[in-house]
Amino acid sequence: MSDHQHIVSSFDRDLEGIQARIMKMGGLVEKAILDAATSLETRDEELAEQVRAGDRVIDELEEQINEEAARVIALRAPTAVDLRVILTVMKIAGNLERIGDYAKNMAKRTTVLAQMAPINGASAALRRMAREVELMLRDALDAYIQRDADLAIDVVHRDHDVDQMYNALFREFLTFMMEDPRNITPCMHLHFIAKNTERMGDHVTSISEQVIYLVTGEMPEDTRPKQDRTSTDASVSPQV
Amino acid sequence: MSDHQHIVSSFDRDLEGIQARIMKMGGLVEKAILDAATSLETRDEELAEQVRAGDRVIDELEEQINEEAARVIALRAPTAVDLRVILTVMKIAGNLERIGDYAKNMAKRTTVLAQMAPINGASAALRRMAREVELMLRDALDAYIQRDADLAIDVVHRDHDVDQMYNALFREFLTFMMEDPRNITPCMHLHFIAKNTERMGDHVTSISEQVIYLVTGEMPEDTRPKQDRTSTDASVSPQV
Repeated sequence: MSDHQHIVSSFDRDLEGIQARIMKMGGLVEKAILDAATSLETRDEELAEQVRAGDRVIDELEEQINEEAARVIALRAPTAVDLRVILTVMKIAGNLERIGDYAKNMAKRTTVLAQMAPINGASAALRRMAREVELMLRDALDAYIQRDADLAIDVVHRDHDVDQMYNALFREFLTFMMEDPRNITPCMHLHFIAKNTERMGDHVTSISEQVIYLVTGEMPEDTRPKQDRTSTDASVSPQV
Repeated sequence: MSDHQHIVSSFDRDLEGIQARIMKMGGLVEKAILDAATSLETRDEELAEQVRAGDRVIDELEEQINEEAARVIALRAPTAVDLRVILTVMKIAGNLERIGDYAKNMAKRTTVLAQMAPINGASAALRRMAREVELMLRDALDAYIQRDADLAIDVVHRDHDVDQMYNALFREFLTFMMEDPRNITPCMHLHFIAKNTERMGDHVTSISEQVIYLVTGEMPEDTRPKQDRTSTDASVSPQV
């Protein structure tokens, strides 16, 4: 019994270390999202460069989390439930790393877009979308730490709004491009930023789904109908 | 000693089962890439629908691989080396699932593009790019099974070609859009397909890097300079 106690608490201590890294990683990714969106709106190339450079730290944290998780699995041979926690942590780290990549990509495009004529209102709309994703991420990580399935479900539903923002922007960029060929190149970049922000939202949703699975033991099925209709909806096609 | 033998061979047997699923998953993903590209070129909406429906099987295989891997880790408490193999398998399954998603997305866009005027030569170029990625994936999985680091390094280098194909298509689509506003919507979809195919190549590269790590114990650093320059290269900006 005391043996078992000892094993459990060692595992918990190991897990705490990993979770601390996850939280650090989450904080950096949140900051990367906001900074990338701000650099885009204010055309701050220096801030964009900081986001690009900072992605290396995020990548390193993921590596450390994976190594630590592997070490814990090998050392503690965790039970099924504890193993699920470890595997969840690794998946969340993977999602965070991908979100960081998208923020880095946004920052890269800032550097390009700073050299082009601005598209009216676009960067403010993108900043609002990025802000929404950042708030979702914050709640998803809170839900993880507090094992709060309800909060996680709420985050999953809010991804719907992000998808709608993306759909609206997709249509808006199409009209800008058709109005003036000079808008085509900047709008292609802005469109990628919008799409990548929408994908960030998908990764936050994936984190939330992991939390729901962790707490309830069930993966939410069809809680979130896919709302990016631009890949299947021909009505976005201009009537020309 | 015989105890150790027993544990090792049980682990190997477990691993064989997982690897069989990986190979099955790889075969389905290869087929999905080719079928999606064919459906795009021949405007075969029925084939596109098959690709979309088939993605569910790929997703289920990933789930099964993850569950099986977790079961093996919990049951066998593998050594550091064996654990690395299991974690690699899980990562490869994750990469395959993402590639399958991109193929599904390509098939979705086929349905939309079939309703629009074709863009001269675009779908043939995309089919060639997809074919290249499919061949890379085949070799990456061969490299995994045969623990062939040289073949894996070769695949990593070939991703360079895919990136160049993407860069060329990006420029081509821009010119089509500027020539005629009616080309804008189809070119947006084609551009996403090109970008997603380039991302498939990145995932194949990631699989190859995992293989290199598995065989050599070292992660290849900077073997593959990122070749998508469209996000940072302002020269794609039209001179208008």
